Amino acid sequence: MLLSESRCVVLGAGGFIGTNLCRALNGKVSSLKAFGRRQAFPDAMKGVPWITGDFSEPASVAAVLGDTDVVYHLVNTSTPTSSNFDKMADLESSVKPTIAMLEACREAGVKRVVFVSSGGTVYGVPKHIPTFEDAPTWPITAYGVTKLAIEKYLFLFNHLYNLDFRVLRVANPFGAFQSTVKIHGAIMTFLQKAMDDRAIEIWGDGGTLRDYIYIDDVVSAILAASEHEGAEKVFNIGAGAGRSLNDIIHAIEKLLGRSLAVKYLNPRPGDVPRSVLDISRAQADLGWSPQVSFEEGLKRTAEWLEVQQQ
Amino acid sequence: MLLSESRCVVLGAGGFIGTNLCRALNGKVSSLKAFGRRQAFPDAMKGVPWITGDFSEPASVAAVLGDTDVVYHLVNTSTPTSSNFDKMADLESSVKPTIAMLEACREAGVKRVVFVSSGGTVYGVPKHIPTFEDAPTWPITAYGVTKLAIEKYLFLFNHLYNLDFRVLRVANPFGAFQSTVKIHGAIMTFLQKAMDDRAIEIWGDGGTLRDYIYIDDVVSAILAASEHEGAEKVFNIGAGAGRSLNDIIHAIEKLLGRSLAVKYLNPRPGDVPRSVLDISRAQADLGWSPQVSFEEGLKRTAEWLEVQQQ
Repeated sequence: MLLSESRCVVLGAGGFIGTNLCRALNGKVSSLKAFGRRQAFPDAMKGVPWITGDFSEPASVAAVLGDTDVVYHLVNTSTPTSSNFDKMADLESSVKPTIAMLEACREAGVKRVVFVSSGGTVYGVPKHIPTFEDAPTWPITAYGVTKLAIEKYLFLFNHLYNLDFRVLRVANPFGAFQSTVKIHGAIMTFLQKAMDDRAIEIWGDGGTLRDYIYIDDVVSAILAASEHEGAEKVFNIGAGAGRSLNDIIHAIEKLLGRSLAVKYLNPRPGDVPRSVLDISRAQADLGWSPQVSFEEGLKRTAEWLEVQQQ
Repeated sequence: MLLSESRCVVLGAGGFIGTNLCRALNGKVSSLKAFGRRQAFPDAMKGVPWITGDFSEPASVAAVLGDTDVVYHLVNTSTPTSSNFDKMADLESSVKPTIAMLEACREAGVKRVVFVSSGGTVYGVPKHIPTFEDAPTWPITAYGVTKLAIEKYLFLFNHLYNLDFRVLRVANPFGAFQSTVKIHGAIMTFLQKAMDDRAIEIWGDGGTLRDYIYIDDVVSAILAASEHEGAEKVFNIGAGAGRSLNDIIHAIEKLLGRSLAVKYLNPRPGDVPRSVLDISRAQADLGWSPQVSFEEGLKRTAEWLEVQQQ
């Protein structure tokens, strides 16, 4: 069905992707409810109908799912690195509430769930680069295991109860409204340190290869997935090209017109050496392609960060 | 390391595969502890050191894992069909205790975990028959999802802590010490009904294709996996050939020399139409092959059942 006629609920709406998604949906859909624990950027969410609640409380989640067509599941309760320290807590906080949420969707007659999964962790250490959707999935973080388990439950609920779904295995998103406090995205962290004239810390030799995708392109993929009618349900969303941490440093140096101080530390055990997604399925089947070049995305991100710091 | 020098613990030892495995290990390994809620066939377990305990109680499990080299994880807390009725309970009773068990293995210095996974459910509705290990895995039962999740946690613990593991995705095992009470195995259920002169009930048209493997061959695969030193860690274990439910009826009719009464019922939603495993990896890498023909296995199973009923 058309997004303009859809009643939408965004779960985990206060975070990086959620904030951007809500801004894109607001006013363009039949109705919108944004649900989350807190808003990382409250000013950015002005005018967006907000419900404060905890994803781990099934009753709070079920309460927002009435009269809803599309549910966006963007909830993160851990990071790839932190998840390995308490695997049980990661399972408890992510998979269990998702099962409860899917049961509630079923009862409420929700038509589709769009889940933002993790293109950087579900494949583990990929044998082939770029990695396509049917490649083996052996995560090396509990975070990756639980994202994968959620994908499987979505498939199961679709099979058993006809609850439609789409999974977007998003690579490394960057851009406006990304937190600089949490150690999440290399680009935002590096930009912040560069602007503060602090040394940039890199785990490993800087050769770690990732697929960086600008947030506006992620949002357009989520919008496309909301209306998509094809048979494929799982899509890689990335630039389809890899950049090393050193590449990012050089790109920032070029953008700012000065050299940066970099400190190289020991590699982290949860980091895969290379992660680049094959995005040909999304291009062919979802009719989506990244529109913002890395350099342009970096420029916009730096401009946003500059305004934030004023 | 050699199995003859290994201290072994079997979790879920009182069931079908567990009983057969314990009988094969007893007296042939450095030490053996059999752990389970109850013994389905107590007479068959005479002489096997038995510890009654619940897999869902982490402390009971941890208590048996001291001074252990190899742990066999054969615990089932649901069936493919029943699991879909309460997906949360299935997750709670299988995945959570497994994570706790793996943490306990790590603390106790266990060297290897051999996990009996489910070749009939982890692949869901397979695109290709016979199905090989790297095929996509989209289960259509919660049972399949949790077996798959356990596989992922085994891989993760191996990656993070060097706890070695092997996964055997066992097809449809049949043979001695299989319960005739639980509606698990078609062969045992059909044989039982045939001997009792009761009509055999078949869900669907009898065309449902499965890969049936005689229990002795499953046990020899588990023993091979205990000592295996190659790089591959996940193996399909089956006959590598498919038989329909109607094929089984005909084989039993031939064995007993009389025709059977069959009642055809509506198909069950959790049943995949065809499931046949590609076993070439196990043959090449594990040095294992099924040794007992279907007809021979059926004959031995019927003989065992006959003795049971006297």
